[in-house]
Amino acid sequence: LKKYWSELAKGLTPYVPGEQPKLNNLIKLNTNENPYAPSPKVREAIDKVCSERLRLYPDPECSRLKAAIARRHGVGADRVFVGNGSDEVLAFCFPAFFGPARRILFPDITYSFYKVYAAFFGIPYETVPLREDFSLDAEDLSRPCGGVLLANPNAPTGLAMQRRGIEQIARHCESLLLVDEAYVEFGGESAVDLTAELDNLLVVKTFSKSHSLAGMRVGYAIGHQGLIEALECVKNSFNSYTLDVLAQAAAIAAIEDDAYCAEQLRKIRQTREWTAGQLQDMGFCVLPSSANFLFIRHPEKTGAQLMQQLRGKGIIVRHFEQERIRDFMRVTIGTQPQMQQFVRELGALV
Amino acid sequence: LKKYWSELAKGLTPYVPGEQPKLNNLIKLNTNENPYAPSPKVREAIDKVCSERLRLYPDPECSRLKAAIARRHGVGADRVFVGNGSDEVLAFCFPAFFGPARRILFPDITYSFYKVYAAFFGIPYETVPLREDFSLDAEDLSRPCGGVLLANPNAPTGLAMQRRGIEQIARHCESLLLVDEAYVEFGGESAVDLTAELDNLLVVKTFSKSHSLAGMRVGYAIGHQGLIEALECVKNSFNSYTLDVLAQAAAIAAIEDDAYCAEQLRKIRQTREWTAGQLQDMGFCVLPSSANFLFIRHPEKTGAQLMQQLRGKGIIVRHFEQERIRDFMRVTIGTQPQMQQFVRELGALV
Repeated sequence: LKKYWSELAKGLTPYVPGEQPKLNNLIKLNTNENPYAPSPKVREAIDKVCSERLRLYPDPECSRLKAAIARRHGVGADRVFVGNGSDEVLAFCFPAFFGPARRILFPDITYSFYKVYAAFFGIPYETVPLREDFSLDAEDLSRPCGGVLLANPNAPTGLAMQRRGIEQIARHCESLLLVDEAYVEFGGESAVDLTAELDNLLVVKTFSKSHSLAGMRVGYAIGHQGLIEALECVKNSFNSYTLDVLAQAAAIAAIEDDAYCAEQLRKIRQTREWTAGQLQDMGFCVLPSSANFLFIRHPEKTGAQLMQQLRGKGIIVRHFEQERIRDFMRVTIGTQPQMQQFVRELGALV
Repeated sequence: LKKYWSELAKGLTPYVPGEQPKLNNLIKLNTNENPYAPSPKVREAIDKVCSERLRLYPDPECSRLKAAIARRHGVGADRVFVGNGSDEVLAFCFPAFFGPARRILFPDITYSFYKVYAAFFGIPYETVPLREDFSLDAEDLSRPCGGVLLANPNAPTGLAMQRRGIEQIARHCESLLLVDEAYVEFGGESAVDLTAELDNLLVVKTFSKSHSLAGMRVGYAIGHQGLIEALECVKNSFNSYTLDVLAQAAAIAAIEDDAYCAEQLRKIRQTREWTAGQLQDMGFCVLPSSANFLFIRHPEKTGAQLMQQLRGKGIIVRHFEQERIRDFMRVTIGTQPQMQQFVRELGALV
């Protein structure tokens, strides 16, 4: 079967995304989606794109979307790059900024796609151990290297690093610092404003979580114009049109309706705090989360066990078979009624 | 500005797509879009995707879309790969099947993205000169190499190669033969059925042209299961979710309404033949086209000149500043009234 595979392809171990079950009546707390639908303005925007537009190529520069993102963050549109989900933006960063000669650094416990990108693009890396409590010591990443990757808040732990930690790392790093802020709107401190003075800081964000648009695949990066140009150069060597016309329309509508979004974020944070309290009362260790998920461990039952048992109750959560965290499970914050049911079912299991 | 760029990024020369003008009243004959809107079923399918689905990740496997494509071509769904436009599918082919050790081959005049992919993924290549009349001698590609790429019909010439030529190349090639059939529905012979017996033949297709969905970015590949698995492996090392939920829905509806599509294809072929006749009467050299565009040359005026002058009349066509073809221009087949206007304006210029 692998007769015509390249040597590179033979050596790849792809990323495995969380399950997207085809069943409808599950409580889906496994892939950190937003439990609330996107702004009604998104639907209106999609409906307004006339059928005639579907036959034409989309704007390859995504100019209107970049302008909307730029306005929202108070930066120039030439400091914004957009891609097919933040996963694609992250993927483009590897060939744009990293090379085979110098190792890049990222924490040992973080988004597991980073090492997959590194292998795919032939970039050597070194993982930096988080502290015992899964927090990150900025010192550990403040040393010469080919680049630094940080998810802030981190996944799957949910722990956030303060902006001054990010700043310290960027100032000590003579190469690129990439901060993946997929979850920052749920409680972290964004580093976007630091990009105005730090030309080696690139902040990557997504519409998937905070703007309830995981289904539409839109991510972006903000940084110095020189960094954005490198990403454009890589993108245009790979695929000219990565965002279709409806994805662009949906994302513009979503980011322009910030008031709607803020209200959903408030509800999710409130439900997260309620859920964390309930779990602690049940004896769970609950890491302090700044994201839309909780990373939890029971003193007696393993994450894999509990995940299996919850699945039997129609609730899916995520478990990672990885050293240091295999006792944990990651639970997305759903609606308040969903989390009440989750807490009830889990209570019956432990 | 290039301070943090990788050595790879510094050396890239990206592909330049045809202009997507923001003006509305132009006759746009420059990027080979279909002049007719997609099937009305596409709009219905998009409207049926409820807002609630937008917040959830799309099916990363695109199972329903693969099944619809497989049914249409009478192959197993495990022989279908889908991507974000055929450009992305082509991009994934490079790391999946080609390596740095052996040169791949493609014609000197063809889709200009091939050499961009090769540079991006570090794949050495050799271009094979087309004959004086821009036809391809299958002999020239029937020799040991790291892989062969062929657009059939070719772009920007529009010339098609018969299926037996494809078969000859595949049988002589001990590596992969990739046939890019973006335009085949407009008059070429598809090689899809040959993939059943030739395990080194991969056929790449798109919804952009024949199915009027350039705006939705959906392409696919059909080939032996082992080839498809290599593409899945590469895709999942790059981006798990390349097709959003509305793109998947739109493509399913489009491919299931083949009768609608066939009727638009018929109209386009008819308009192409009418236009070709008119241009020949005006003294143009018109290459025999099996695609939805014509590649034409005037004995006295250069392609660049004519393109400029047509632009002044509100008509945009494409010109390539490249040896052997710089006297030509490429004209997409629009609706019959659009082509009548094009012929009228062009007639006044020459």
